[in-house]
Formats: sequence, C-alpha cells, structure tokens
Amino acid sequence: MRTIDRDDEKEAVKLIDQTLLPREYKIVECKTLDELIDAIKRLKVRGAPALGAAGAFGVVLACTNEKSKETIKTKVERLKKARPTAVNLSYGVNRTLNAAMHGKNMQEMKEYALEEARRIADEDVAVNKKIGDYGSELLEDGDVVLTHCNAGRLACVDWGTALGVIRTAIEKGKRIEVIACETRPLNQGSRITTWELLQDEIPVTLIADSMSAVVMREGKVDKVIVGADRVVKEGVINKIGTYMHAVIAKSHNIPFYVAAPLSSFDLKRSYKAVEIEERSPDELIFFGAEQIAPLEVKVYNPAFDFTPFELIAAVITEKGVLYPPLLTE
Amino acid sequence: MRTIDRDDEKEAVKLIDQTLLPREYKIVECKTLDELIDAIKRLKVRGAPALGAAGAFGVVLACTNEKSKETIKTKVERLKKARPTAVNLSYGVNRTLNAAMHGKNMQEMKEYALEEARRIADEDVAVNKKIGDYGSELLEDGDVVLTHCNAGRLACVDWGTALGVIRTAIEKGKRIEVIACETRPLNQGSRITTWELLQDEIPVTLIADSMSAVVMREGKVDKVIVGADRVVKEGVINKIGTYMHAVIAKSHNIPFYVAAPLSSFDLKRSYKAVEIEERSPDELIFFGAEQIAPLEVKVYNPAFDFTPFELIAAVITEKGVLYPPLLTE
Repeated sequence: MRTIDRDDEKEAVKLIDQTLLPREYKIVECKTLDELIDAIKRLKVRGAPALGAAGAFGVVLACTNEKSKETIKTKVERLKKARPTAVNLSYGVNRTLNAAMHGKNMQEMKEYALEEARRIADEDVAVNKKIGDYGSELLEDGDVVLTHCNAGRLACVDWGTALGVIRTAIEKGKRIEVIACETRPLNQGSRITTWELLQDEIPVTLIADSMSAVVMREGKVDKVIVGADRVVKEGVINKIGTYMHAVIAKSHNIPFYVAAPLSSFDLKRSYKAVEIEERSPDELIFFGAEQIAPLEVKVYNPAFDFTPFELIAAVITEKGVLYPPLLTE
Repeated sequence: MRTIDRDDEKEAVKLIDQTLLPREYKIVECKTLDELIDAIKRLKVRGAPALGAAGAFGVVLACTNEKSKETIKTKVERLKKARPTAVNLSYGVNRTLNAAMHGKNMQEMKEYALEEARRIADEDVAVNKKIGDYGSELLEDGDVVLTHCNAGRLACVDWGTALGVIRTAIEKGKRIEVIACETRPLNQGSRITTWELLQDEIPVTLIADSMSAVVMREGKVDKVIVGADRVVKEGVINKIGTYMHAVIAKSHNIPFYVAAPLSSFDLKRSYKAVEIEERSPDELIFFGAEQIAPLEVKVYNPAFDFTPFELIAAVITEKGVLYPPLLTE
C-alpha cells in the first residue's frame, strides 16, 4: 500500500508505521486528529511529502464531528505545528482547509476536504514520477549514488524523491547502486532506506554517516542525491547530516543533488527564519531501551540542517532540473 | 584506578570494562592471555596507548607457565594480531618481549617482562602529561574543542592524549568546553568521552557525528583535537569519522590537531600499507540486541580512516608540537 492513505470504510487515516521497520511491517489507523498528530510527532509517518498528505488527510479528520469552521481552523493549527521544519505539512493543511471552507455545511466541508486530500496524495505520486524522469537523466549507467536519511517512497505517498530518481533510472535500464547512510540519531537510513531498496531488489550498502567521507575519498561514489524538507532563498533545509555530506562531496568534486517537489519550496524565506526542530536529548542518550551516555550529559540535537546553494549542483523538481542560483524574483 | 594495570596478588591484568560504561563501572581481571585477547577484541580495553600497555602486560601473561622462548613468541603473535590498525599494540608487545628474552630462565623472563610492562605503563602517563603541556599552549581561555571517539584517559593508561591536552589546559586555569561526537558505530564518544569528562566536571555537549559540520558552521567550535592510532608517512590513521571532521574543519578554517605519543608514529610506512580493520556488519545492523537494519543488507564498516597532513594543523607529541610536513628522513 501507499505510505499514507485513507480507509473510507473505517473513516481513518492509515499509514505504515515506520518506527517498527525493518523488524515489523504494520499498518496504523488514526481515527482522530490527536492520534494522527501523535503518529507525526513519533515519526510513524515522516518525510516532507508524506507529511503534506498527512496534513491533508488530517483536515478530513478535523472535519469529523465538528460544528463550526472556527473550531476546525483552531484544531488544524495544532496539526500544522506537530513538526515545524518541513513546509509541506502546512502546505497540505492549508490547501485542504481552503477547499473545505467552500462547503456550505459540515458534510460538504468534509467531502471537499477529502477530495482535496486525495488530489494532494495522487499529485504527490505524479510529481515524484516527474522528478524521477528529470532526475534519472542526471544518472549514468553504473553510477553509485550516496543518499542520506530516507527520501524514498516511505517519505512520500509513493515512489520517492531522491530514491524515486534512482527507481526511474533503473526502470530506464540503468544499473544503479546505492550507498545508504544510517542517519543518526533515528537511523532512517538503516531502518527504512535499506528496507525499501531491498524490497525493490536495488543493490544497497549501509554505512555510518561519518564514513561518507571515506567512500567518497576512495572513489566509490559518483553522485549524491538527497531530499529536502524546505527549499529556501539561500539553499536547502534537510535532515541533519545533509550539510556535512554536501561539504564533503564538494571537496571531492562529486555532484550533490537535491530532489524535491515544488511544494517544498519556500523561496521567499531565509533559512534564518525557519524553525529548526530540536529533538529530545534522549535520542542521543538512549538507543531504544539501552542507555548509551550519562543521563546528565548536555546534548545538542537539531533534526535538520541548512546547506547553501553553493554546495548544490542542482535541485530536481517536477518541472525540471534547476541549477542554482535559483532566482526568486 | 588506571585504565589498565597489573594485579600482582592475583597475577592478573586488570582493566576497566569500557563496553559497560556509562551504565556500569566494572573491573575485569584477565588471568590468561586468551582472556586478554578476548577483552581486546571486544574493545573492553581500546585506544592506541592503552593497547600498548595491554600488549606489554599481555607478554607477562604469556610468560606464565611456559617452558620455551619459542612458544612465548608464537603466543604473543596472536596478541599482536588481536587488533591490526594501532601500531602501539605491536610496539608494547615487541618491547616487552625483547626485555623478557634477556632472562636466563622463565622466572627471570617474567620478571623482566613485568618490569618493562610497568615502565611502558608509567611512561605512557608521563608522555601524556608532556603532550598535555605542549598541547595546552595551543588552547586559549574560553575555547570550545570538538573531539571524536575517545582519546582520553580511558584510551591510555591515564590522563589521555586529546583529552589530556584539555585536562592540562584546564589545570593551567583556562576555561575549556568540549563537544563530543558520539562516534558511530560503537559510540565511544557517547559512552566513554562524555563519562570521563563529566567525572572530571569538564563541560561537555554530546552531538551525533554528522552534526559536527553544523556546530562548525554556527561558529561554536574553536579547535578540533583527536588522537591517532598510527601516524604514517602521509598523515594520520584514526577512528572512522576523523577524516570527515578534518575536511569539514578545513572548510571552516578551524585548526585540526592530532595528539599522539611518538609510540604511535610509523613514519616510514605509507597509509596504503596499513591494514584498516573492517569490523562486523552486525555493528550497523544491530544496536545492542535491537535490530535496526535488514539482516541481509550489505554493510561497509571500516573501523579507521586516513587523514592526510594537508588537513592537519599540527601533531602534538611528548617532544613538542610538530607542524606538517613531518620529515621522515
């Protein structure tokens, strides 16, 4: 199934619980907005494009058993704030809310919201296929592509952005291998990227994040492709570690690509005006149930970082490959 | 107590089990060479200088209940191969074995070995204090120093190399803060470095390895100091991740220092001739008992990497601060 979808019969949002992968493949059903917000905060669903769809389907949940437009607006504000950094969550919420507001009564509002949410989800798949088409032209037969975090089908509704580019290239007959960085502290690379690539029988090698410099120095990497949580005026905000890989790639003359739908673009905003989510110290003090650092140690745990366009060879979108500087006027 | 020492009464090598930190502080006794080799392979004792002392005390164990010099030589070959990358293990073994060989009988050999092993251990502490003296001059009051892995007292017999520099600077009245990188995949940074710094009440902040680029970009790092497993003709071999930090530091104009005793020097050898230990895929597929990646995924897991002198501002030794290029003739 898709990463996130609606179950009409149960009137629920259903999603693949990504915190249990690769050990267990489990579908979670969220019947209330609170359940969905909790799933987002716990990263059961994550990835900028998937969060866009989650926001959209969340508005449908918000329209259930509500009597006033004002209450719905208040409720979805909480949804928008479930994770602050990716622009897609707000995008999905706002677009669906606007559609809902054209409804004359609650029943109509919910119908309009659901239509719009479905449209957003379907568009996401179509957009990713387009990103794949454009991006695959940048890859050559035999390329080894390093990626960070998970910008695959599990970060989206389906297909994926960075991994979508790889999927399309392979579909077109190119042989592509992937090096997946584990992506500390939550290991989306080891848990999710390797899992979804192996599902599709795409060759993948797992490394620790700090090994990317070594594989690049050893000539084992032809290109780097990552996703984006937000494309801003001066560059790209993405999973913590992206900036490091970009600096290292530049110093080894390896092209560094970002694959992102235009819904992740926020080009009028400076990265300085974007809230970088800081997550709990526990993510570095514990690993699962195991304590791996002193309980009293101070921790700095930003979930995202900023990479300036100077380090980015191109941004791959559904409208084509954009080469920095990206003009915002 | 020291990281590694001899218990005369029990005729055993005693060491702090570093795999249990920070949850448990436990002293392990190795009464046989096999027990010590096992402790080395499992990283109960690790760090290049500590491995030198482990090798030395191991020769004393090898001299116990043995009848021939040849058997002893064969036995210690296994000890030398317990971990291949750090030169200190071989150094400690060879030096102690040479001393032992002057003995006329087994009793004398063991005595000579023990004397030499004690000398090596004491020298290590003295050497680290000297490294601290020289290195501390490179630090300024108020500096924030980023370090990787553990080049502290637990990597040595006592005091530490990289952390020894910080300890001496603080002893001299400078205020120094440390940023410790967790050091995947075995988390020596989170498990050991933070623990030993907090024991000494030295301010420390823990980050994931991939965050070093961010803290450097944010201007939060004044200097980087790491240890070394081997200093070779063209640069330094140290814990995986070192090269990454060095590239990033260079690109942010942050001085990158290596603190290492001359016993880690192997300047006639090229890094290409040094075996880089590749450790088990399980270190990236599992975290403790928890599976975090598909069992069948391919893993690349080198334990060390090579950093060329071009990226290194200076090597701090017990004889002074050496500025590359280091002349080997």
